[in-house]
Amino acid sequence: MQDDLKFMRRAIDLARHNALEVKAGGPFGCVIVRDGEIIAEAANQVLADRDPTAHAEIVAIRAASKALNSHVLEGCTVYTTGEPCPMCYAACWWARVASIRFASNHDDALEFGGFDDRHITEALALPGDARPLPSTELCRADMLEVWRAYHAMPDRIHY
Amino acid sequence: MQDDLKFMRRAIDLARHNALEVKAGGPFGCVIVRDGEIIAEAANQVLADRDPTAHAEIVAIRAASKALNSHVLEGCTVYTTGEPCPMCYAACWWARVASIRFASNHDDALEFGGFDDRHITEALALPGDARPLPSTELCRADMLEVWRAYHAMPDRIHY
Repeated sequence: MQDDLKFMRRAIDLARHNALEVKAGGPFGCVIVRDGEIIAEAANQVLADRDPTAHAEIVAIRAASKALNSHVLEGCTVYTTGEPCPMCYAACWWARVASIRFASNHDDALEFGGFDDRHITEALALPGDARPLPSTELCRADMLEVWRAYHAMPDRIHY
Repeated sequence: MQDDLKFMRRAIDLARHNALEVKAGGPFGCVIVRDGEIIAEAANQVLADRDPTAHAEIVAIRAASKALNSHVLEGCTVYTTGEPCPMCYAACWWARVASIRFASNHDDALEFGGFDDRHITEALALPGDARPLPSTELCRADMLEVWRAYHAMPDRIHY
């Protein structure tokens, strides 16, 4: 618990520095910890890098993967200053982290920063073609040929 | 419609090449188009780059943002060979793309490749602390101080 506080306060320092001192974007910081040690940390880089995927969690996960030389971050805890959006939560899932701690929640991000990801979660609960940003099928038969060939590969890598 | 087919077939070619020829990972390709022109394309790089966030859509969005020098991809269509997972769908949302076309669906990816993202969508519908990968609150009061200071900044950037 003592360590939990220490790591979250480090993430909050990163958020404060990014938003109030460097003024690089929103107050979002993230620290990734394994076995009591920080293996990666980051702040939101969306504006600085002109990269819409550069949320603090994504940048930190990429750095942690580099540090561990693996796309799997088993046993890691993600400390993030904002409750993860669906992009970042799913990234944590794919990376197989053990748990996520967040400081402020979705409502705080909306109230104080105008950042709103509830619409994304609502959209994900709808069928693809009923979403405000629609996703619709095309060329499935062509793609099933590739899937069948992939499925039949004797040396297919499982991951 | 003719162009739609052309762009999706290009995405399928990228998937086929990645999975069956290079054997770099799953058959996932993505092409991003604006005004009838491809501005970025990519295949899944999770294993090649040891990066759990390197789904084809994320890699392509990052490349498109670089090409347009902007974190906003308004007017763009994303052609992807697999129905986007929550990470990739949310990334498309944050990038403000206009629409998403996909070739094969979630069930196909599970049947032929063992790739399963339905659990993530199900988890996102639950409260954070009830998810299989739990996300729980810590240090909210500390973070609210930062949010209040950010909110009060006269030169805060809106994005």
